[in-house]
Amino acid sequence: MEKKYTDFRNNIYQKISGYVPGEQPESNDWIKINTNENPYPPSPSVVRVLQELAKNPSLLRKYPNPNGEPLRSSLANMYNLKPENFIVTNGSDEALSLIVRIFLDQTRTAAAPEITYSLYQTLVMSVGAKYIHAPMKNYTILNVSPEALEESGADVVFLSNPNAQTGEFIPLNILEKLISKSKKLWVIDEAYNDFVDIKPSSFLHILKEHENVIVVRTFSKSHSMAGMRIGYAASVNPVIMQGFLTGKDSYNEDVVSILTGKASLEDGEYLHKVIQSVQLERTRMMTEFLDRNFLVLPSEANFLLIQPPESKKAHDILLKLKEQKILVRHFNSPLLAKYLRISIGTKEENNELLKAIDFIVSS
Amino acid sequence: MEKKYTDFRNNIYQKISGYVPGEQPESNDWIKINTNENPYPPSPSVVRVLQELAKNPSLLRKYPNPNGEPLRSSLANMYNLKPENFIVTNGSDEALSLIVRIFLDQTRTAAAPEITYSLYQTLVMSVGAKYIHAPMKNYTILNVSPEALEESGADVVFLSNPNAQTGEFIPLNILEKLISKSKKLWVIDEAYNDFVDIKPSSFLHILKEHENVIVVRTFSKSHSMAGMRIGYAASVNPVIMQGFLTGKDSYNEDVVSILTGKASLEDGEYLHKVIQSVQLERTRMMTEFLDRNFLVLPSEANFLLIQPPESKKAHDILLKLKEQKILVRHFNSPLLAKYLRISIGTKEENNELLKAIDFIVSS
Repeated sequence: MEKKYTDFRNNIYQKISGYVPGEQPESNDWIKINTNENPYPPSPSVVRVLQELAKNPSLLRKYPNPNGEPLRSSLANMYNLKPENFIVTNGSDEALSLIVRIFLDQTRTAAAPEITYSLYQTLVMSVGAKYIHAPMKNYTILNVSPEALEESGADVVFLSNPNAQTGEFIPLNILEKLISKSKKLWVIDEAYNDFVDIKPSSFLHILKEHENVIVVRTFSKSHSMAGMRIGYAASVNPVIMQGFLTGKDSYNEDVVSILTGKASLEDGEYLHKVIQSVQLERTRMMTEFLDRNFLVLPSEANFLLIQPPESKKAHDILLKLKEQKILVRHFNSPLLAKYLRISIGTKEENNELLKAIDFIVSS
Repeated sequence: MEKKYTDFRNNIYQKISGYVPGEQPESNDWIKINTNENPYPPSPSVVRVLQELAKNPSLLRKYPNPNGEPLRSSLANMYNLKPENFIVTNGSDEALSLIVRIFLDQTRTAAAPEITYSLYQTLVMSVGAKYIHAPMKNYTILNVSPEALEESGADVVFLSNPNAQTGEFIPLNILEKLISKSKKLWVIDEAYNDFVDIKPSSFLHILKEHENVIVVRTFSKSHSMAGMRIGYAASVNPVIMQGFLTGKDSYNEDVVSILTGKASLEDGEYLHKVIQSVQLERTRMMTEFLDRNFLVLPSEANFLLIQPPESKKAHDILLKLKEQKILVRHFNSPLLAKYLRISIGTKEENNELLKAIDFIVSS
């Protein structure tokens, strides 16, 4: 007879399920292009910080700076804002989690595009708020409709820019026009923004005039630091920032992440080089897939959403790639069933992928 | 004319204020005995991990293990439990924050001793739950009453063991007797538990039989790793653990913290040495303060709660110590107004403190 355990969870947690991240194999013999990690190592300046800390381990025994300094001030310098406009977080996921807890509740509603980072929905549900899928503008190439977000009637809207899964980038001038007239709180998640070709691409550059915007960013993608859990949120609205300070754990970011994050941020030259390599490979891979009669969505991120030619099923290809130790991503949602999402790897990894796909498609 | 900003915060966040941690001065010329940090550096094995990571920075570009492995399995081995009984968290504060979000809501009530870690109340209020101060057993030496917690009528009770601020340890057999008959969810916060003289001191050793208990622990105190933000929660109730998995961020602990935490955990010899040094200094400092006619609460933690002789005011002494670059802690709550809390420092730091206090008291 099975033991029956008491369910102490609150009413909401008894009903919801968590976000399911992409697979993380333990061994290193995979071509892992399923979770949009950067294929290049972090900046050499990150290594120097680790070496310094190894010489001075007593730094670890003390609590870190509660405001993520000196990383916070470094961010403020870079974007010509004030340190108090930033909160450093344990990955951008923590920033998103704080946002739902501080700005939503069971009486409020959030909206996000029908196709986007599904964590938004998971988080919104976890505080009992209502979640609206704002319809896409176009169901073939899955364009985001910022207007549908504005017209959704939600209190808070989430916009991933470039959009998660599709890679579409909404230019700043279009967003600004809409947001200037909006009464909603806009959360602009710029996880992939550093990979955009058109500059300036970050809303941070025009944040000053918009008190109804929170920009969320991460070091996981462009800075090659997913393992370090470094993110941040920025707003010029002091009431929003007060909310973050009230809601966050006192010491929410560790000292190694703070110091390596600062070092990486200040090595702009290396970052630029890495981003350029990813952009070049992205362009090449788009062409390669188009040559093979795949539908390829125009992407400004470090991944491509691709649809294999009619007869081949996306999920079958994923399984066959897995047999060859290549991990890509497939999403269960009906709108994405025909697609695969592949992260841009190194040139060698990308060539391996193409070779494997050619073999699968021809057999 | 001052600009008026829109308040997007939910109704709860418009009313509450955050936890205020102890002061963290930037410079290193302070004797900092205000936040119960360990005065000794972390284990040499932690340094070796940092050196290894500096040689292999590509590890940082990938997401960390979502379950905090291999630290989680190492914890399971140590306490003869299963890996799935543990969740690794970004400091024990994250574990506590998850607990209020998963097991409380606006219809539920939490209780904690009147004198304890004030973060419990801050967190409970942040989800709109009711908070009950369970009265102390004795208002001179501020004894915790576990019976008052059980009789509080709360759904969830928080017990810091040893208790924060006072250092009192409730023996396991007393707790077990009460908890075996309890229908409540008990959260036993063992932040200071490694410093207890009587062994076994951790509820983890008897956790198997108690599905209504969550044990919360941290690497910030005994492991000298406050800067790394490593904590964990443990329960043998799979429904509780499911709640944690649903509520936590996918990658809530970074790879450097996971790997250095494991290294520290497995260096039991160094840990033992550090704990013994703190215990020895604790005994010496108790005697020193008693010799000076201070009231000293019996403490099993790495701090002492002391009350200066009648004529001297605690807060005045704090200010005068600060002039001499010695930071101690004072709490505003009426029951603690006459006390100072001092962390156990190195022998040299403790001697400096005694010298400074002798000077202040005699002048």
